[in-house]
Amino acid sequence: MSDLIGQCIRRTVAEAIPATAVDEILNSSKPLLIKFGADPSAADLHLGHAVVLNLLRRFQDAGHRVQFLIGDFTAMIGDPTGKSETRPILTREQILQNAATYQRQVFKILNPERTDVVFNSTWLDVLPSRELVQLSAKYTVARMLERDDFDKRFKGNVPISLHEFLYPLLQGYDSVVLNSDVEVGGTDQKFNLLMGRHLQKEWDASPQRVIMTPILEGLDGVQKMSKSLGNHVGLLDSASDMFGKIMSMPDSLIPRYYTFLTDASDDFITSLTRDLVAGVTHPKTAKEDLAERIVSRFHSSEAGAAARLEFNRVFSGGELPDEMPDLVIPGPENRLADLLVSAGAVVSKKEYSRLVNQGAISVDNVIISDPFYGLPFQSGMVIRVGKRRFYKTLIVS
Amino acid sequence: MSDLIGQCIRRTVAEAIPATAVDEILNSSKPLLIKFGADPSAADLHLGHAVVLNLLRRFQDAGHRVQFLIGDFTAMIGDPTGKSETRPILTREQILQNAATYQRQVFKILNPERTDVVFNSTWLDVLPSRELVQLSAKYTVARMLERDDFDKRFKGNVPISLHEFLYPLLQGYDSVVLNSDVEVGGTDQKFNLLMGRHLQKEWDASPQRVIMTPILEGLDGVQKMSKSLGNHVGLLDSASDMFGKIMSMPDSLIPRYYTFLTDASDDFITSLTRDLVAGVTHPKTAKEDLAERIVSRFHSSEAGAAARLEFNRVFSGGELPDEMPDLVIPGPENRLADLLVSAGAVVSKKEYSRLVNQGAISVDNVIISDPFYGLPFQSGMVIRVGKRRFYKTLIVS
Repeated sequence: MSDLIGQCIRRTVAEAIPATAVDEILNSSKPLLIKFGADPSAADLHLGHAVVLNLLRRFQDAGHRVQFLIGDFTAMIGDPTGKSETRPILTREQILQNAATYQRQVFKILNPERTDVVFNSTWLDVLPSRELVQLSAKYTVARMLERDDFDKRFKGNVPISLHEFLYPLLQGYDSVVLNSDVEVGGTDQKFNLLMGRHLQKEWDASPQRVIMTPILEGLDGVQKMSKSLGNHVGLLDSASDMFGKIMSMPDSLIPRYYTFLTDASDDFITSLTRDLVAGVTHPKTAKEDLAERIVSRFHSSEAGAAARLEFNRVFSGGELPDEMPDLVIPGPENRLADLLVSAGAVVSKKEYSRLVNQGAISVDNVIISDPFYGLPFQSGMVIRVGKRRFYKTLIVS
Repeated sequence: MSDLIGQCIRRTVAEAIPATAVDEILNSSKPLLIKFGADPSAADLHLGHAVVLNLLRRFQDAGHRVQFLIGDFTAMIGDPTGKSETRPILTREQILQNAATYQRQVFKILNPERTDVVFNSTWLDVLPSRELVQLSAKYTVARMLERDDFDKRFKGNVPISLHEFLYPLLQGYDSVVLNSDVEVGGTDQKFNLLMGRHLQKEWDASPQRVIMTPILEGLDGVQKMSKSLGNHVGLLDSASDMFGKIMSMPDSLIPRYYTFLTDASDDFITSLTRDLVAGVTHPKTAKEDLAERIVSRFHSSEAGAAARLEFNRVFSGGELPDEMPDLVIPGPENRLADLLVSAGAVVSKKEYSRLVNQGAISVDNVIISDPFYGLPFQSGMVIRVGKRRFYKTLIVS
């Protein structure tokens, strides 16, 4: 393996247990089974997921197999208390659909020939209650309460339902069933990843190595990238969307995105960081380079270059993009707010009002100031929403 | 129902939820289903169990049915951590054997025609893991930790295995499956009894009434009666053993045993208690009356009267009992300690030594002082151990 790939791997590992795990994986002549658990309730993958998927792909390139685990058993149970919005109950159809969407996305990064897609309902649906009781005997209440989020909720008197204690055990039990040699996940999954080690030892199997990747900040530069926070870049985003979104992020993120999402060398990133701090490199240029690299990775180098040209034409020269989606209008008499919400150009009337107040919405280059704006629309008018979203009206009545 | 029976019922109820539960049961024209959970790992029943069984029998006499639940599902799992000595893992054969022994004992009190013996493995063995997870969502960690013993262990850093949290849920779920209208148990079972109410509400069923009986002190007058503490009177004990054991208990227990184990009237018990305090009634007489009542209840009134006569003949008059078990001796040269231990006359050499030191062992009326006592035995010698145990030697070589 090249020194460059080695660098890319090592800087994407926030923590490894044991500390020698990465070397063991890279030096193993035997193909290892590397588990990665996916949450089937969130079918849209983004650059945050790409960090771990890139790492898995590099392990595949080194000869190992990925066990891509769809946690459908727990997804179909969800949160039976109905209190957690992050655990909706999914039907089998939804899960299969999400799993298909998932695969379309992950195979933009993973090598399908070295990936086993497995569903944990295969073994958990037929696990007798008796064995679940025995499984639960393998862990204590006190140690479960050491998990960071449980600890905070317990101390803050926020109820923890008992089934929440079973989920980490089931996740760990998956490693027992799958005979995983390695499990990879974000640093926020440490407790659950270690559960796999614990349970494998209980079953007298060799404990899996645990590799943790860093948590990528979203476009706001503060919070974890997440679809629900709207600070994400989707793996299936169009080239120009991807490019534009990356350009919108704070400059401070440039080194981290280079570190976790590109195969630039350590030396390159070090000098880029230094040059940005010294003002030798302009952040806009560095960000354009970064955006082009990432778009090239997920689309093609041609698409990366084209997205960059287009971005510069529109946002530097004030020109309109070559292509604009239609804003379909059922008749000339309509409120702009309603049209933009139903077209998905804004997520809510609240966002619409906020954008109007910011002077961020214009019709044929005239900025709107009245939130109740509505005029007799015609086809071919250009609606601009924020910096980068353009629509062309189309009357269909 | 007679006023006397009403008194016997009410004074055996330490707590009822709701407070009107006893009246509801006694006034119900519809036969109610009254659940009583038995621990199949303790097959020997004693007077402590008789308190609750007597109450159940009176409810049967009022027209209701008893669901005698053998908790074999959890008994067969036991304590998978192996840490708890009170939860041995039992085989199906042991459980069936214990259940048979159980029934022989409980039907000395319960009416078999109004008793359904049920095993919870019937429904728990086929409960899918998925449903166990959903069941566990019906309760929170914090509320589980409110249970007295969990609270103490958690605060004292004594590990609680996760499966221990599932057992009360399963016990409560039994009430859901059985559609129990009432559950009866000791006051120490309050948490588990209320779990049945909680879960039935979750299943939109009417919550069972909960009737708690007091915990009977054992012959030491301090600790809960329990076979493992050796302070018990077994329901299958012989008439003379039962009589003698009751005579050995402290006088202070007389009113409580009258209250919970006889059908004496409230007035009788009140005046007896007063007379004992005033010294008008001799405790020995009161205890003999009590012992005769209890023996009559579990054997026959003839056996009760005979046991009393026998007891007085032996212990008051220094005479030997009519019948003595053989102490089988494989040859004349033997240590008395070994013989008594192997015959079960003493539980250990330690107890033997203690009794010798107390001058409580004699051979043909000669008190032994040498713990290594051994003499050429002959058949027909009388060995006395403590106050009430007599054996006749029998050489079989």
